[in-house]
Amino acid sequence: MNGVQHWGEGVRLLVEIAATAAFALSGVMDAARKRLDAVGVCVVGFLAAFGGGTLRDLLLDQRPFFWVRHVDMLWGVLGLCVLAMLLLRHRHFELTEKAIQWPDALGLGLFAAAGTHEALAAGLPGIVAVLMGVITGVFGGVLRDVVCNEIPTAFSDHRPYAVCAFAGGWVYVALWHSAAPGWAALLGCVLITAGLRALALWRNWRLPAWQA
Amino acid sequence: MNGVQHWGEGVRLLVEIAATAAFALSGVMDAARKRLDAVGVCVVGFLAAFGGGTLRDLLLDQRPFFWVRHVDMLWGVLGLCVLAMLLLRHRHFELTEKAIQWPDALGLGLFAAAGTHEALAAGLPGIVAVLMGVITGVFGGVLRDVVCNEIPTAFSDHRPYAVCAFAGGWVYVALWHSAAPGWAALLGCVLITAGLRALALWRNWRLPAWQA
Amino acid sequence: MNGVQHWGEGVRLLVEIAATAAFALSGVMDAARKRLDAVGVCVVGFLAAFGGGTLRDLLLDQRPFFWVRHVDMLWGVLGLCVLAMLLLRHRHFELTEKAIQWPDALGLGLFAAAGTHEALAAGLPGIVAVLMGVITGVFGGVLRDVVCNEIPTAFSDHRPYAVCAFAGGWVYVALWHSAAPGWAALLGCVLITAGLRALALWRNWRLPAWQA
Repeated sequence: MNGVQHWGEGVRLLVEIAATAAFALSGVMDAARKRLDAVGVCVVGFLAAFGGGTLRDLLLDQRPFFWVRHVDMLWGVLGLCVLAMLLLRHRHFELTEKAIQWPDALGLGLFAAAGTHEALAAGLPGIVAVLMGVITGVFGGVLRDVVCNEIPTAFSDHRPYAVCAFAGGWVYVALWHSAAPGWAALLGCVLITAGLRALALWRNWRLPAWQA
Repeated sequence: MNGVQHWGEGVRLLVEIAATAAFALSGVMDAARKRLDAVGVCVVGFLAAFGGGTLRDLLLDQRPFFWVRHVDMLWGVLGLCVLAMLLLRHRHFELTEKAIQWPDALGLGLFAAAGTHEALAAGLPGIVAVLMGVITGVFGGVLRDVVCNEIPTAFSDHRPYAVCAFAGGWVYVALWHSAAPGWAALLGCVLITAGLRALALWRNWRLPAWQA
Repeated sequence: MNGVQHWGEGVRLLVEIAATAAFALSGVMDAARKRLDAVGVCVVGFLAAFGGGTLRDLLLDQRPFFWVRHVDMLWGVLGLCVLAMLLLRHRHFELTEKAIQWPDALGLGLFAAAGTHEALAAGLPGIVAVLMGVITGVFGGVLRDVVCNEIPTAFSDHRPYAVCAFAGGWVYVALWHSAAPGWAALLGCVLITAGLRALALWRNWRLPAWQA
């Protein structure tokens, strides 16, 4: 049993690192497209990677931030930004974006679960917890786009992204209230969120648009 | 006496709901103009409705946020966003904007009073309290415009809006320090703020522009 | 000795006031270029002057903000904004921008030192402290540019600015950990930050750009 738990922790850590790297890379490429300088590339990478969780912790009034508890994550993202600037070229961007869709989808689920969990543990109602999950998963990308002076992709590309985290968050809330073990709630939320996102990408689902 | 107080509370709640709806609608229409998807419309609606008060509570370090205390407000705004997407068409926008000017002006006054009150109750000096009132009333719209990638209307349309809340806030501070009853300070602030705003709209007042 | 300390305090206060004024002026001129109204000019001036330190205090969860402790600073910046609108014309902007480069560079160093100090005093690790210093010095300008709907200059003009504060912050951390007296750490950080910035302006250094 202990072995399984260790194994589960290891997978979780792996997904978290891959997802953080995917988020940071999305920021780095956005910054490169906007011709930011080296400082801008790093800042936007940090915002994309850590912005959502930081905003959630600000709203929930929780300290220390996870990037204060895990300073190696800061160094890792900094290293990733520098490496990307040295190695990644514009012609690699399309392929990179394809490749990071999968860790990004898993990360969306993981971050949504983490955000929902923190809020539920603080005694907040279900709808607030789900919103905190969505904020954790989505607002890193929103801050990235705001600093790059663009309308956030998550709000304008008509592809389901935040709604997947919204659905996954409710799964977490339901399992939490039915006293399911923590790993089951986590797994359920990640599977639903990432599964919906994968389905949406695969079947090319579109969000309803405003009827003019 | 108790009857009057109840009646006053009821009016206050009514103004608050109408104003929150007006703020949310302003966000929804902004989002529609920018062709955001359904998620974007809801997020911008939430930001416009709750952003100012949330920023104030963040700055004053107060929890829980009022949308955590009043979860029905969250559901209400969510429902409003969905309804607006189903029923509201672009040809209705001009009329809607005319119609929401009045609850918006009242809400500006109410939110300015609430923000000023919170800060004064926390023992902050007058100028800080007034700024908190202005932030409560105005920064929901500012966040809405920043996410929609526009220069905030409140800072660029040369029509008095924030200054009305600024004036109303000082009225609140003055009445507070003269130990007037709470409802008198609230009423004074709302009347001055909404009155100035209505006058400005009616007489087409313009803020001084920079001389080139 | 006491005399020297007093003298040091006086110089520090002078630099702080000059730097805050320089930051506010940069905001005022940005707002004027974007044709904001009087309210917008003041808000952007405030954001540029106080935004960085306020964001740092939010992240470190410290209250009261320094502009709450020093309300005269608020009045001073408000007065500066009004004066600038009355006296400053677009033809003066270029000269003003040249003139404020020096207090701006000193202020960058001073604010970086202040931010690093706060974080170290709160027991945070070195890299976090340095980032807090950078945020204190740089994010006022970032908020200014975001509200003015521009990509932040600090991330896109390819001139070393944030990196100077980054370097100066590490000097502060090193001197702090070697138990140097507080004034030495402060002086070291300011000299390195402002010196690097001055060198960068003088020798026209450019940050590395992304290779397409």
